[in-house]
Amino acid sequence: MALIVQKYGGSSVADPDRIANVANRVVKGWRDGNRMVVVLSAMAGETDRLINLARELAEDPDPRELDVLLATGEQVTVSLFSMFLRAQGVPATSLLSHQARIYTDRSYGRARIIGIDTARIREELKKNRVVTVAGFQGVDEVGNITTLGRGGSDTTAVAIAASLKADLCEIYTDVEGVFTTDPRIHPKARKLERIAYDEMLEMASLGAKILEIRSVGFAKRYNVPLAVRSSFTDAPGTLVTAEDEEMETIPVSGVAFSRNDARVTITRVPDRPGIAVRLFKPVAQANIVVDMIIQNTSIDGFTDLTFTVPKGDLKKTLELLGPVAREIGAQQVLGENNIAKVSIVGVGMKNNSGIAARMFEALAAANINIMMISTSEIKISCVIEDKYGELAVRLLHDAFGLENPPQKAPLQG
Amino acid sequence: MALIVQKYGGSSVADPDRIANVANRVVKGWRDGNRMVVVLSAMAGETDRLINLARELAEDPDPRELDVLLATGEQVTVSLFSMFLRAQGVPATSLLSHQARIYTDRSYGRARIIGIDTARIREELKKNRVVTVAGFQGVDEVGNITTLGRGGSDTTAVAIAASLKADLCEIYTDVEGVFTTDPRIHPKARKLERIAYDEMLEMASLGAKILEIRSVGFAKRYNVPLAVRSSFTDAPGTLVTAEDEEMETIPVSGVAFSRNDARVTITRVPDRPGIAVRLFKPVAQANIVVDMIIQNTSIDGFTDLTFTVPKGDLKKTLELLGPVAREIGAQQVLGENNIAKVSIVGVGMKNNSGIAARMFEALAAANINIMMISTSEIKISCVIEDKYGELAVRLLHDAFGLENPPQKAPLQG
Repeated sequence: MALIVQKYGGSSVADPDRIANVANRVVKGWRDGNRMVVVLSAMAGETDRLINLARELAEDPDPRELDVLLATGEQVTVSLFSMFLRAQGVPATSLLSHQARIYTDRSYGRARIIGIDTARIREELKKNRVVTVAGFQGVDEVGNITTLGRGGSDTTAVAIAASLKADLCEIYTDVEGVFTTDPRIHPKARKLERIAYDEMLEMASLGAKILEIRSVGFAKRYNVPLAVRSSFTDAPGTLVTAEDEEMETIPVSGVAFSRNDARVTITRVPDRPGIAVRLFKPVAQANIVVDMIIQNTSIDGFTDLTFTVPKGDLKKTLELLGPVAREIGAQQVLGENNIAKVSIVGVGMKNNSGIAARMFEALAAANINIMMISTSEIKISCVIEDKYGELAVRLLHDAFGLENPPQKAPLQG
Repeated sequence: MALIVQKYGGSSVADPDRIANVANRVVKGWRDGNRMVVVLSAMAGETDRLINLARELAEDPDPRELDVLLATGEQVTVSLFSMFLRAQGVPATSLLSHQARIYTDRSYGRARIIGIDTARIREELKKNRVVTVAGFQGVDEVGNITTLGRGGSDTTAVAIAASLKADLCEIYTDVEGVFTTDPRIHPKARKLERIAYDEMLEMASLGAKILEIRSVGFAKRYNVPLAVRSSFTDAPGTLVTAEDEEMETIPVSGVAFSRNDARVTITRVPDRPGIAVRLFKPVAQANIVVDMIIQNTSIDGFTDLTFTVPKGDLKKTLELLGPVAREIGAQQVLGENNIAKVSIVGVGMKNNSGIAARMFEALAAANINIMMISTSEIKISCVIEDKYGELAVRLLHDAFGLENPPQKAPLQG
């Protein structure tokens, strides 16, 4: 008998038929003798419907009231889900955030979970009930309703699993698991049996929209075994877990791809102390996240500075930097939208040399120019021209042989 | 500066335009310096939409979960309403039942309010905020969500007004007030300026669906001045209040009409002690409410027994009584659907003789046969053939001169 937390996303509970379909999976788990907590999202489309209603009444809806409104989406799902379970003879109880005691700070629309008092959930589990919990929402210390932002139900599920010390947290979604790369880009993409938390974090932050990134961080911190599975099939999915020796023998686990960035170049920047601060401070103050930064070798006391920002922030960044560039005597500020970022990710990279070289070689062989490079312990990212993005993904996937399942490595020589 | 509780029903908040329209009324009240609490229903049609969703997942939805589902309707309205107010520069805060601390028993779907802790509402009012409260719902002592049943938002408003000792509780609806009779039945129906709580109770229970009957009882018990007004006009509406000497000079305030009853007749019932118990006990045990009961004078030790039940319970009643009638040796059990009940209501009836005679006379003059009669201190009801129902309403309305506003009576001779 295991304690399992399951989370079903909006597409898995989009209408009564789908609710009945996934609820039958819960019925089976419960009949098999497991204790079950089910975290649910709003029915697909419902959150957008509510936001549109709000927009009809206020151009910029009050954040507190918007959260009260949006929280109804999950409330509808948990009650419908529990009704269905009860109609099948399975005792079930829905809990909203104030009942499940999911406490957050007061950052409406992007609240952080600060603690869960699991007494009520445990009490219901002791009565052998399936507990359905409204995802995506919490309450602050005085009972105001908050929401965690898009994808927040993943975080709810992982936080509950961590607090309950659950045996497994299963995230059900509309894909079969985590793939070596996006199957829409490369037909040879292979579903991973396992992936390390850190790899998943890199994949998530690089644009693989399978798991909300905060939930992976949470799972890693509290060592919650996380399974990503499809609610439409019985395939086993992908297990997200702590890395082990076997994983560390695999240099590259996946290829990530993102078109979310734009590039900013400032030419002929005087190479003096304090210049970087003057350039990046106004950008930071505007809450614009700068990702990769490259500074060329200085020639004659001048250098070129290049960095990336989210595409949606490019215009604002250029507006902010124009005056600053003139003040410091730089030549010009250039913005470019047509870039893509391809990355290879793998915890085994740490122990394997020559991975970067193989990456650059594969791109060079196809005459793809690398505009920027950034690396971490378990990731190498290259910015290239947008038009080569998908080709690069396929080339790298093939270069590292990702279509083949990894061989079990001999642990001793 | 007054403390005013306003309640807007589903048709008044049916869509964003209507919400904006009625919210502007709140803005005006607040700008005039009043402290405002606004109780809201779900948008018209929303409760039915949710019930239909539930029915797709469970034939007989679990009552606790159904209440969790239905409670979202008012939650949507209060958040939208508050957003609009804030967008107009009026500070507003929505409170759900667990935040407004509206405590009920645990009778899901028909819960009774057992108390309101108004500390939080008062706190918000002190900050000069408009407080919007989700009507129709409460929480039990452990925080389960309950609903009060159809029309429950009226009760929420009156209960809050009573707890806050508000100066006025205004119930906004889609009619202009309480009329002497249904204007769709008689074009001469006149809007009443004032009506006594007891009269309103009789009118409500007799089928005038303007105010939920429990809310009137609540208002009477706590002496809450209640105004029924239209949210679509600025007309002053009807004030429901304690009776005073002036009201007591008016013998008849209104004519009520109902088609909700059916008649059951048991012929040749042996006239012995204990027979009535044997007949009515199984009916009561089936939760069927018996209204009027008439027993004819006994002839040769036999009598005929006639009573009314809600139309929807007629079939069940006949099924229950068939066997009993045979056991006690009665002749037969007859059911009849084609009846109507017309009633005249007025607190002044107590002090005026001859009112019943004038009623019977008016009906007799049109050859309308009276099948049953029942009376209370402030009401006389007659059951007649269904087809004469609307005619009878018009005749009685005219007979008591209800189209004319009452003359101020000289208090001393």
